[in-house]
Amino acid sequence: MKNIYFDNAATTSVEPLVVETMTEVLKDVFGNPSSIHLFGRQAKVVVENARKKIANLINVTPSEIFFTSGGTEAINTAINGCVKDLKIENVITAEIEHPAVLNSLKKFSTQIKLNFVKFDNKGNVDFHSLEELLKINKNALVVLMHANNEIGNLLSIKETGEICEKYNALFFSDTVQTTGKYKIDFSNLNLHFAVCSAHKFHGPKGAGFLYVKNGIKINPLIFGGNQEMNMRAGTENIAGIAGMAKALEIASDGNEKNMLHIKSLKEYLIQQLKINFKNIIFNGDCEERGLYNLVNFSFPKTEKTEVLIYNLDIAGIAVSGGSACASGANKPSRVLKALNCDIERTAIRVSFSKYNTKDEIDLFVEKLIKLINA
Amino acid sequence: MKNIYFDNAATTSVEPLVVETMTEVLKDVFGNPSSIHLFGRQAKVVVENARKKIANLINVTPSEIFFTSGGTEAINTAINGCVKDLKIENVITAEIEHPAVLNSLKKFSTQIKLNFVKFDNKGNVDFHSLEELLKINKNALVVLMHANNEIGNLLSIKETGEICEKYNALFFSDTVQTTGKYKIDFSNLNLHFAVCSAHKFHGPKGAGFLYVKNGIKINPLIFGGNQEMNMRAGTENIAGIAGMAKALEIASDGNEKNMLHIKSLKEYLIQQLKINFKNIIFNGDCEERGLYNLVNFSFPKTEKTEVLIYNLDIAGIAVSGGSACASGANKPSRVLKALNCDIERTAIRVSFSKYNTKDEIDLFVEKLIKLINA
Repeated sequence: MKNIYFDNAATTSVEPLVVETMTEVLKDVFGNPSSIHLFGRQAKVVVENARKKIANLINVTPSEIFFTSGGTEAINTAINGCVKDLKIENVITAEIEHPAVLNSLKKFSTQIKLNFVKFDNKGNVDFHSLEELLKINKNALVVLMHANNEIGNLLSIKETGEICEKYNALFFSDTVQTTGKYKIDFSNLNLHFAVCSAHKFHGPKGAGFLYVKNGIKINPLIFGGNQEMNMRAGTENIAGIAGMAKALEIASDGNEKNMLHIKSLKEYLIQQLKINFKNIIFNGDCEERGLYNLVNFSFPKTEKTEVLIYNLDIAGIAVSGGSACASGANKPSRVLKALNCDIERTAIRVSFSKYNTKDEIDLFVEKLIKLINA
Repeated sequence: MKNIYFDNAATTSVEPLVVETMTEVLKDVFGNPSSIHLFGRQAKVVVENARKKIANLINVTPSEIFFTSGGTEAINTAINGCVKDLKIENVITAEIEHPAVLNSLKKFSTQIKLNFVKFDNKGNVDFHSLEELLKINKNALVVLMHANNEIGNLLSIKETGEICEKYNALFFSDTVQTTGKYKIDFSNLNLHFAVCSAHKFHGPKGAGFLYVKNGIKINPLIFGGNQEMNMRAGTENIAGIAGMAKALEIASDGNEKNMLHIKSLKEYLIQQLKINFKNIIFNGDCEERGLYNLVNFSFPKTEKTEVLIYNLDIAGIAVSGGSACASGANKPSRVLKALNCDIERTAIRVSFSKYNTKDEIDLFVEKLIKLINA
């Protein structure tokens, strides 16, 4: 039986054309981009073409894009810079942010005050609560993710940016789950920092970028040579960078088609789950809104549902109980807990890619019925 | 005409078998190593097999190896941890260290005292000066590179480790230029931190590791998930890690053969240069000792030698004026300056790999003669 991969929020398969691009770079371009000779210049061209391509796809200038080893490093760089260089003392964030955000912030717990926004009963940011916090925390940094990685709730970064602007706050959004999935015009937002991780949209692991709005100057997290306009030292991962640009290009080109296909999968899954399981609960706002590729749902905890994810795995179906980072599996989800979801239930996150099919959903639901009702 | 690449200290071409290994991983293994399902476990196996292979090659335990995005990140992590977690206040280092070391240290200039060792007239560390500094700086951290990237001088890390042990100092050596070039038994040394960058031995850019001796506990530089035994957050660059392990394996297997070949190239180049250029000076200790693949030499500054590197590049021969990081080219080398070399001369660094040949040296020397004497 063919395995079914329904964990695309954790990571995605690498696009064949991306593998091809990377293999070509690995074979043919090996100079150090900092070297001034031909080999170095060839490597530099790869890096700078990737930067231009990415900047163009999200409508920013190339000088606003800094390549990193992934989303986590980019997040750490932004938060580090905000605290150390921009002297941010008040941060407004959410308990459902990614561990890369929360743990980076907690590192500075003696230097900054952390304030947490409230949520509505679907897990959406309560903008009234955000405004209240902005009123009492002057010159704050607002850190709110574009889409939550566990429940898929989407934040309007346009609206959030406007609120931040009103209170003169900096706005950093973790856009790891949305870059490549939506066409985002970063220039059109009051957004100062954003991050991307290539492996979330069929690019390679080990490549990402930090977007920093022109005019904002922070120091590197990683010191050394003058790479990345003095913002990130270390010889560039040229194959990874070229692969990321290719992956983002393919994702952007296929955006509308993929979105339609994946949306229909999501709707079909929700429909089938509702038909077959009376006591199912959908976490977050995934029925109405939320990431078009993600559904998080739960069943009452029983002997059978407790081992559901393991038994699905044995049956060749990969789903997750929450984020990949929160492995160890049987610990209740930090995100669901923060949103007051019933964590005494067994939660399952299904996240699709363009490669998934309706047939796979049928097989999945069939298996679920067997495992739960058998 | 075939181009000649004589800048292998800056970076190396990627070994064909390494490209193959990476391409296979990119195509076939795409899970997130933190996921508990089959796809995740397959990815985890790739990462842990690489860790075991590397640990075995340098004779340490896998739990002492932490994967990073390269040498620079590894260096930053070690220094950050020594200052913040081990509360190091006195550092003994050298002015000829790599910018990744010096700039990471300078970041903590208000927290640590930096002491610089002296050198003999060949640019070798003066152990007497090291001992004197250790006597007056208790519980110090000694940071001295195994091989200098510009002049190739080698440090006896065995002897240095013994001196450090005598004074209860921690010892961190930047082993970026020597890993893969020498068989090093890390367990046999009083060495607490070491670093590696895959692209220096025909591996990919964007992969490296930090070695931390068992028993030493530092915190991450990059916070987030629990990857790398809680020492480095962020989804692992699995293709890069697999490629690095393969590259180190190939380098270790071919070590003796490559060393003999490259040593003979170095000797031949020195001989030919001495025959053809009366006013040549060899920088550092490369004539007698030093990295077997590196020669740094200089000519009196003239109109012709000032543009030598550019004209060699036009002729298809890639050499460097110093390190790749110090591009911009016409600035005198920081390393040569620190060693009191005559920086009014034009310095050239030639660094070989196993792919270079005697014929290439003949072409290079022939071209040099034309460019300088014409």
